[in-house]
Amino acid sequence: MTARATPPSPIGLHRVLDPPGALPQAAARLDPTAHLLADDEVIVRVERLNLDAAGYRQLERAHAGDGAAIRAEVSRIITERGKMHNPVTGSGGMLIGTVEAVGPASPLGLAPGDRIATLVSLTLTPLQVDDGLAAWDGLGEQVPCTGHAVLFGRSVAARLPDDLPPELALAVMDVCGAPALTHRVVARHVGEGRPPVVAVIGAAGKSGSLSLAAARRAGAARTIGVVPVPAERDALTAAALADAVVLADARDPVALAAAVTAAGGPADVTVVCVDVPGCEHGAVLATAPLGTVVFFSMATSFTAAALGAEGLAADVTLLIGNGYATGHAALALDVLRGSPGVRALFEARTGAHRPVRPAEPPVRPADPTTGGPTGEATGDLRGDGGDSPA
Amino acid sequence: MTARATPPSPIGLHRVLDPPGALPQAAARLDPTAHLLADDEVIVRVERLNLDAAGYRQLERAHAGDGAAIRAEVSRIITERGKMHNPVTGSGGMLIGTVEAVGPASPLGLAPGDRIATLVSLTLTPLQVDDGLAAWDGLGEQVPCTGHAVLFGRSVAARLPDDLPPELALAVMDVCGAPALTHRVVARHVGEGRPPVVAVIGAAGKSGSLSLAAARRAGAARTIGVVPVPAERDALTAAALADAVVLADARDPVALAAAVTAAGGPADVTVVCVDVPGCEHGAVLATAPLGTVVFFSMATSFTAAALGAEGLAADVTLLIGNGYATGHAALALDVLRGSPGVRALFEARTGAHRPVRPAEPPVRPADPTTGGPTGEATGDLRGDGGDSPA
Repeated sequence: MTARATPPSPIGLHRVLDPPGALPQAAARLDPTAHLLADDEVIVRVERLNLDAAGYRQLERAHAGDGAAIRAEVSRIITERGKMHNPVTGSGGMLIGTVEAVGPASPLGLAPGDRIATLVSLTLTPLQVDDGLAAWDGLGEQVPCTGHAVLFGRSVAARLPDDLPPELALAVMDVCGAPALTHRVVARHVGEGRPPVVAVIGAAGKSGSLSLAAARRAGAARTIGVVPVPAERDALTAAALADAVVLADARDPVALAAAVTAAGGPADVTVVCVDVPGCEHGAVLATAPLGTVVFFSMATSFTAAALGAEGLAADVTLLIGNGYATGHAALALDVLRGSPGVRALFEARTGAHRPVRPAEPPVRPADPTTGGPTGEATGDLRGDGGDSPA
Repeated sequence: MTARATPPSPIGLHRVLDPPGALPQAAARLDPTAHLLADDEVIVRVERLNLDAAGYRQLERAHAGDGAAIRAEVSRIITERGKMHNPVTGSGGMLIGTVEAVGPASPLGLAPGDRIATLVSLTLTPLQVDDGLAAWDGLGEQVPCTGHAVLFGRSVAARLPDDLPPELALAVMDVCGAPALTHRVVARHVGEGRPPVVAVIGAAGKSGSLSLAAARRAGAARTIGVVPVPAERDALTAAALADAVVLADARDPVALAAAVTAAGGPADVTVVCVDVPGCEHGAVLATAPLGTVVFFSMATSFTAAALGAEGLAADVTLLIGNGYATGHAALALDVLRGSPGVRALFEARTGAHRPVRPAEPPVRPADPTTGGPTGEATGDLRGDGGDSPA
């Protein structure tokens, strides 16, 4: 099974069994062989899988909540594919485990015994389970199990810190790309001698609150938090993360731009952390000429952003929020440690069980000034790659 | 009809009749009143509309090629909506005309008598036609007509240059955002003391060839043109725009990255100008750490780009190709003037009638090394905003 023509590769091409030449994420089947096949690999003893929320919900519906049937299907997927990659939703999740073996050329900085979380998706992580998921009742996204997984040279994993509860650390690492990129963009403006006004749309959520704190830490001239409902306004105000907190419906371009401007904008850097469709034009309109919009919402439409900026003759830089940046997990954890306000918001979110919300309808509320049930700051629905544990 | 509560605005909110508060592009109906309603407006005497290709094809199919019926429907749309905004495709096109009146506060730098093309979409341009489109047979995207249009303070229009054939100038202006942004990104790298290796995917197309020439002009250390078929390789080689020209299927990440690397990569700046889905992972993989990928293809998937980079642990900047940048038309025309190779490629494309191609199937060719019919460098399908005249 392990005899392949593909030479070892930092992105794991040598673990792809089918189809040959595909990337691991696109592959139908990976080789999860338990020993190192490349000098830069790491073998992890698995302790728990965190299935992504969208993928688990699909399984739950498909099997009408029958835990044994859900367990059997997850077990079958992992056995057949050599990875946990839901074929319907295309999503996976993340895992927690302990490093067992580290190849001599691994660049990940891990050592045997380290307790880690993977920050790349299970959809591209070779995985073999050896207990048939017997310890799992199939009734939740947390899957205790035994087995092993493989990290490549270019995988991403983070040591679980000693000073923070694991659930809190995982919730931070889940969205750590947002504060990392926000910090970098703000720091670049500062380095050019023009500390920016920063607006964060969906500022009371996980990625939003971290981004606000990261912006301030990087030297923003002013921070503006935009939230859709009074309860979030009050929570964000209490957290003292922003110089101004304003209510606005992010899907109403004119209202959003007016609210940001009234709060000290337009923004030089606008960070979109709110996972509802239709926020592109408002974000562009709220941003000053030669400013930057960072889209972290997975509900962002590429064409709406590109054509919207063109139609508004807006000379702004439009960034796709890359979930990876060097040192992103360490930076995000450090931002949390340094900000009691962020920590309070996170603890309020991770402490309570988040109910499954129905998909938001892509329509305007009758009265946008009331906020309504839309435009919620979730900021944690990156579709995959580690939904926060419930 | 012109009595509105909305104050004049540089983005034309005062011209929106329905629904109130919408942006002009999102509006169902605009007010095309022929006199200046705001100090920063411009009135243009219209000479010709260029309907966008996708919108025209929809009308052609809906009316089975009946020119009179197509003409009647376009006339009805313009009358009802106060703009040419195809309600099915959501697209419009651009127009050519002569400036008639310029408000005292207009920032566009136009004067009465200037012959111009609009570079923002007809979907947001107030328009009234007064000849019932009588001079048009309904059988092509070019619509000769009389009437007037309105430009806002933040519209974009460009004077048709005296030294270039109008069709050639329009074809350049249609894609001028790509070379402008490429030039800016490359110049930033150069300014930071690290002239970049630049790879352009879809390099023989309009936006691709202009981007290659712009990259060289901005000081790229090396330029690599990627094309899918031998005919384009030969044409691009003859145009002498790139230091290396390579064949690769942009939808095969491993093959694309290998081809770029073999040609002197990885790239510090990768520009995606090829309008087929599935090029995101290859572009990321072909790009060096801390490099930049500029996505100009309207077939780009936001989530594929964001999650792909995350899954590959690729610390790269991902840019949505904004079709607008200050001075973009002037820069692109200047690039063409200075590059006989670009001009030759453009003349070869605009001289011949481009047949309507069927949609490309999103599958791999049996043998990617042959290129096949996919991955063609079109680079001009921005969905709207001025498809090039046939």
